[in-house]
Amino acid sequence: MKNKLLLFLGLVGLFYILSSSNIGAFLQPLQERITENINEDWHYLADNTQDIAQLKSKTDWQTINLPHTWNQWDALDLEPGYRRDASWYQKEIFLSNYEQAEYLLYFEGSNISTQVYVNGELAGTHVGGYVGFRINITPQVRRGQKNTISIRVDNSYNPNIIPTQKADFFIYGGITRDLWLEIVPKVRLQDVYISTPEVSREQATTTLAITLPPGIELTKDYEVKSSIISGENQTVVAEKNFAAAAVNQQQALVMPTIKTPELWSPDHPHLYQVKVQLLKNGQVCDEKTATIGYRWYHFEQHGAFYLNGERLLLRGTHRHEEHAGYGAAMPNEQHRKDIAQIKEMGANFIRLGHYPQDPEVYRACNELGLIVWDELPWCRGGMGEEEWQANTERLLLEQIHQHYNHPSICFWALGNEIYWLPDFENGDDEQRLNAYVTKLNKLAHEADPYRLTALRKYYAGADLVDVFSPSIWSGWYAGVYTNYKNTLTQNQEEYAQFLHMEYGGSSHVGRHTENPITGEGALSDDDWAEVANQVNIENVAKKGDWTENYIVDLFDYYLSVTETQPNFAGNAQWAFKDFGTPLRPKNAIPYLNQKGLVDRDGQPKDAYYVYKSYWSKTPFVYIESHTWTYRRGPEGKARNISVYSNCAVVELIHNGKKLGRKNRVLGELPAGGLNWEVDFTAGENTLIAVGEATDGSTYADTLKITYDFQQAATADNIHLSAKMLANGNFLVEAEVQDKNGLRVLDYEEEIYFTCDGAGTLLRHYGTPTRSQVIQMANGRAAIELTPEPSGKAIIEARNQDFKGSYLVIDFAKESSTKMKNNETE
Amino acid sequence: MKNKLLLFLGLVGLFYILSSSNIGAFLQPLQERITENINEDWHYLADNTQDIAQLKSKTDWQTINLPHTWNQWDALDLEPGYRRDASWYQKEIFLSNYEQAEYLLYFEGSNISTQVYVNGELAGTHVGGYVGFRINITPQVRRGQKNTISIRVDNSYNPNIIPTQKADFFIYGGITRDLWLEIVPKVRLQDVYISTPEVSREQATTTLAITLPPGIELTKDYEVKSSIISGENQTVVAEKNFAAAAVNQQQALVMPTIKTPELWSPDHPHLYQVKVQLLKNGQVCDEKTATIGYRWYHFEQHGAFYLNGERLLLRGTHRHEEHAGYGAAMPNEQHRKDIAQIKEMGANFIRLGHYPQDPEVYRACNELGLIVWDELPWCRGGMGEEEWQANTERLLLEQIHQHYNHPSICFWALGNEIYWLPDFENGDDEQRLNAYVTKLNKLAHEADPYRLTALRKYYAGADLVDVFSPSIWSGWYAGVYTNYKNTLTQNQEEYAQFLHMEYGGSSHVGRHTENPITGEGALSDDDWAEVANQVNIENVAKKGDWTENYIVDLFDYYLSVTETQPNFAGNAQWAFKDFGTPLRPKNAIPYLNQKGLVDRDGQPKDAYYVYKSYWSKTPFVYIESHTWTYRRGPEGKARNISVYSNCAVVELIHNGKKLGRKNRVLGELPAGGLNWEVDFTAGENTLIAVGEATDGSTYADTLKITYDFQQAATADNIHLSAKMLANGNFLVEAEVQDKNGLRVLDYEEEIYFTCDGAGTLLRHYGTPTRSQVIQMANGRAAIELTPEPSGKAIIEARNQDFKGSYLVIDFAKESSTKMKNNETE
Repeated sequence: MKNKLLLFLGLVGLFYILSSSNIGAFLQPLQERITENINEDWHYLADNTQDIAQLKSKTDWQTINLPHTWNQWDALDLEPGYRRDASWYQKEIFLSNYEQAEYLLYFEGSNISTQVYVNGELAGTHVGGYVGFRINITPQVRRGQKNTISIRVDNSYNPNIIPTQKADFFIYGGITRDLWLEIVPKVRLQDVYISTPEVSREQATTTLAITLPPGIELTKDYEVKSSIISGENQTVVAEKNFAAAAVNQQQALVMPTIKTPELWSPDHPHLYQVKVQLLKNGQVCDEKTATIGYRWYHFEQHGAFYLNGERLLLRGTHRHEEHAGYGAAMPNEQHRKDIAQIKEMGANFIRLGHYPQDPEVYRACNELGLIVWDELPWCRGGMGEEEWQANTERLLLEQIHQHYNHPSICFWALGNEIYWLPDFENGDDEQRLNAYVTKLNKLAHEADPYRLTALRKYYAGADLVDVFSPSIWSGWYAGVYTNYKNTLTQNQEEYAQFLHMEYGGSSHVGRHTENPITGEGALSDDDWAEVANQVNIENVAKKGDWTENYIVDLFDYYLSVTETQPNFAGNAQWAFKDFGTPLRPKNAIPYLNQKGLVDRDGQPKDAYYVYKSYWSKTPFVYIESHTWTYRRGPEGKARNISVYSNCAVVELIHNGKKLGRKNRVLGELPAGGLNWEVDFTAGENTLIAVGEATDGSTYADTLKITYDFQQAATADNIHLSAKMLANGNFLVEAEVQDKNGLRVLDYEEEIYFTCDGAGTLLRHYGTPTRSQVIQMANGRAAIELTPEPSGKAIIEARNQDFKGSYLVIDFAKESSTKMKNNETE
Repeated sequence: MKNKLLLFLGLVGLFYILSSSNIGAFLQPLQERITENINEDWHYLADNTQDIAQLKSKTDWQTINLPHTWNQWDALDLEPGYRRDASWYQKEIFLSNYEQAEYLLYFEGSNISTQVYVNGELAGTHVGGYVGFRINITPQVRRGQKNTISIRVDNSYNPNIIPTQKADFFIYGGITRDLWLEIVPKVRLQDVYISTPEVSREQATTTLAITLPPGIELTKDYEVKSSIISGENQTVVAEKNFAAAAVNQQQALVMPTIKTPELWSPDHPHLYQVKVQLLKNGQVCDEKTATIGYRWYHFEQHGAFYLNGERLLLRGTHRHEEHAGYGAAMPNEQHRKDIAQIKEMGANFIRLGHYPQDPEVYRACNELGLIVWDELPWCRGGMGEEEWQANTERLLLEQIHQHYNHPSICFWALGNEIYWLPDFENGDDEQRLNAYVTKLNKLAHEADPYRLTALRKYYAGADLVDVFSPSIWSGWYAGVYTNYKNTLTQNQEEYAQFLHMEYGGSSHVGRHTENPITGEGALSDDDWAEVANQVNIENVAKKGDWTENYIVDLFDYYLSVTETQPNFAGNAQWAFKDFGTPLRPKNAIPYLNQKGLVDRDGQPKDAYYVYKSYWSKTPFVYIESHTWTYRRGPEGKARNISVYSNCAVVELIHNGKKLGRKNRVLGELPAGGLNWEVDFTAGENTLIAVGEATDGSTYADTLKITYDFQQAATADNIHLSAKMLANGNFLVEAEVQDKNGLRVLDYEEEIYFTCDGAGTLLRHYGTPTRSQVIQMANGRAAIELTPEPSGKAIIEARNQDFKGSYLVIDFAKESSTKMKNNETE
């Protein structure tokens, strides 16, 4: 691995030397395929002209690096809508003159339609986002010269390309993933598809399908050598050469059977590399490597999921490809972080709803051990006509082909809520839809005979695919969460291969209550699920309080069910991280779907620790809640405090007083029985929870809570203060207080922050401290401010109720001192 | 008048000829003072640098014309806050070399702090918006050359300059009014203040106070000649010469008494010009003209207002200086239009709350006949310390001085709600405030002994000024509107010179109901008035329906009271036109105060016609309501239809059937008795109201109403359609419909419009058809779209309830045809 990296860097270096010195102008042999990342230093123009000739006269170019989206900020700003239009990217690249070589651009993804021009000539196009594609630019390339690459990307409204914007997420426009230059031999390996048709603990078979570039046939002096290499120690476990004729036929090339393969599983994600070399007269002239794993899986009918012959409860969540401050244009480090955080929580399953994601995500799932439900972006909007269908079928095949080798993927999902809100006439006709799902299902199975197909929430098509998920949102869009156990049992009986995708609810960080609104006694109907039209709905989503407490209770209950439910295959919580959506302008943070276990920047909410307590094997303790540190109640009334932990035994200590050791009991609520009655004293209280793992090691969490016996009067004013954060920003905090300066905990209206003068408010991130408009949580809201070396910031907070409070921060004077409210210099 | 204009144009022409030919470089005599408008072709830079040297390196200059504000659009956009910062204006002006001349810039107003540089040198500054000021740039001018004028204007937060931003309006930044270049003789008339100390029907005295430029004394060879010229026929009614000595003393120069002056009044706004000429050795070397009028007025104690010895009920409204698409930077035509529209409604009084307005406004009030309450912009925020006080006192004097001659002004108001939400510690201390109000009152009376001072809603100061207005908002911020009569009577007893400023409420255009929420039986307390903190308030403002019907009923009731209340001096409705405010982000149109009788673009709401029916003498009829043309109800249930009219007799005709003639009876409710029971038929109904004025002339209004006996089911979808308007724009209409396509009339949630592709949504105007986010009115909302010659617009409408409908308009294909909903090409 390290050697390969050095080799790669060496090649890149060589390339630059050649480029800069113009040596590359001379014809030279291509020793090895060159794969160079070309993310950096693009010129970007937010202009939708179709006419490439017009670009020369444009002056508004900016310099950017890829990945890039033009919707980084406007998705979550307060103006409705976001830029759905076309833009141009342009870059000059020197291309050396290699003998018998072709020049390709490989896009990991570009949203949603792409035209590639080289030196002003159209080289190729691609329609559809979220998948990779390769453009052969050889005919347009000027060898040994500088070449101008111009790329037009378009995310404007086009109902003929899935997904429809009626889906609950933003369609970020731009080259949102890495971009690569490939210089490859004319005669080369195009794609390598590895199948593992039969796997058991005893042995595994491996077959290869190799494609060649269009028009290329291998002559007899060529052969292919394939090696299967195990894990990190790089042991070659199988090796075989294939004659040119076999390769030309693109038929399955069977590798030697491997004995006692190390199986891939979430707990032990063992990987193999398949190195495929193209040899000419015994000399390597091209090489490709694929990462694979050996595993097999199946469902018990109406029952559990089995991986490698053992029952595996699928413990899942979902991920949208976006992040605070990035939109969809995330660096690989952030993709990896997301998957690592999901894994750390103890999940073994992820549904990549509602579209294929970045290659780094699949690499991470392979390497860290997460089973993947990979989904075609047919999300709502019904079905279209010929053009729509051609696009959709092609995109399904592209997705299956490019993700074919990933051992993590077990399911190809054909869509989600596909019938909803049709964009075309009769787009929700069940007969048509059924025929089309059948067609897609067949296409998927033909393209990959070894995986299961899946579908969510299109009931008429439940039997047309292998695995089905109905919509069950007990306790959020429908009924109360305590309905979940019965509903689950019923659905297990109903569907032969049943996975439950999507459940959960929204929580607003820092919003807490002793008595969350559960709808118990008021809501019972569990049949609504999420409906397109929310007008006449009575549910917790609309009537609830969006507290962290409610969602903690909901997940605690759900997990107590799923972890004990007999023969249950598994489910996936919706969704791991808060994400932007055009559909929810009036959420507690506008345009943010707040169903995440972590906020849009990856900061865990309380709910994250509930999951961790059930799923993770790494011992921890977490006192609920670190975002509920100012509380109130009558003197002498004890409060029940839960500790979420996976330790066998936990003790809670209140102001130095031990409240007793408790054993964690699976299924006991709340918190597996880890809860204590705490009789708070007025003022600061210290809680320490000490957990003891089965091996005797101990873990602790400390929480300081200020408790108040006084009741606040009615809201009187907005009080502003500021403090410096570790990141150098100021945190401006707004509290609604009564006349005596007591915080009014039940005040929940939006607050509107503005800043004049020096300094910059961090806004449009969709996080609890970087949103300009945000509902108060327990009478409090906060926003970060980036200071300047000098000058004054005037921060203002107001809303429909309050006509405004000001806070002046003089950057020259202030450091970490607390600033006073509403006073001028 | 015409001659003067020609002379002016001639001079301007001459100036340009001189400028362009560079003849002006030679020293030449100044024949007459030159006053040249220099609004056009400024370079504008939105950059707050303090360092004028930095301007050279800036490239983001735009070319603009004055008046200009940088808050034209960001005031009513959906992002909280608006640009409060500094900007630069720059222009090159050739200045001829005149002998014994000085060069001045006259700003009619610049918000809110201004620094003027000429050729890079600071020439002068002014602190405070809404008033005019003159900068003498003579020392910096390069005569006979091009001069660079650079102006830095700053509207950033500064608590030392009134008004505070806790006031309910935007502080628009920029040179928001006309800008003039004055080239004047060194020895000249500076200001001319005309007083009319004694006026009766028999005679009027006139005195002049003339100021000279600093350091200038007239030598004996100078004298001043003053003429008083009546009205349009230009008759000289008095003439007198004054010796230099008298002028030098700046004492009152007494003009000959005028016999039987034509008095100024709202019904007969007769004006006189006072021409003042400075003569040297008998030759005119400078001249100024002031417009004045002769009138006198007083209050009966605890009783009526008298103008020219006759009782005059003050029928008033209010005006904020702003307009849709302009912000505060309105052209004079629009200022004039506003005042003319107020006059046409029949008003005779206007409170220019909460700041001095454009010179054109006073000119219009003088000429059209509106009595003016002119107000210092001390609106909320309490009082400050030394710097604040120095600014406030200076601004009061500047205001009085520059508006001194206007006959329309009867009241100098010192402030509004001055104690509220103090910006400084102890800024709301009553002792301090009383002392300060006393000081300002004295200053005002010293500066102008002939007018009354006034104050609103600072109860502790009610006796410190001449005229007081408490806060009475019966039926909106407090209690029910039927409390108004009693409250009025009580306040007449309470205050010796009582005017009632501000009443009314919000109405959302097109929102209608048979049964407006009045609070009758639920609200009774009339003491709340508007309070700073709206959290715990129960009132119609919060609990009401914001229908046009409610506000029509309220105004109808109020007017029936005020027009019949004995000894009542008068009141003023708040406010004539909808206006922007940072304080109301959640209004039916966000950031818009919707209390207007007309929308922010001047389109009358129903309420306008209620006023017109009581006040205007120009006959008209208006059937309530032209924005309620689709109605619903059970078959056979008659509906009461009101006709607002000032005709003596009106008849309503329904589908050709005469429903009877009715006499208009003052005080009868609703509509002065002009209402009929109409038994609508299903489908289209035609109503025609025919009014007969006392002189027998007739006037008609026709209204077509579609009536439906069917009840709509629950809201099911957003239906979009579009039609072409007379202005060439498309009107995109969104209706919330049930499953059968019936409009759901009680649907009132916000709708969010967006547009991708070609065409531009008109937004941020704060009007019913040019707002991107707007609450539905009776299940409907609409937005205008400016088309392009070709291309497609994709307009989307969605909200928290509905996931979106699309409408595609192909500009190449569509003309005035109706487009269908949610269908793609």
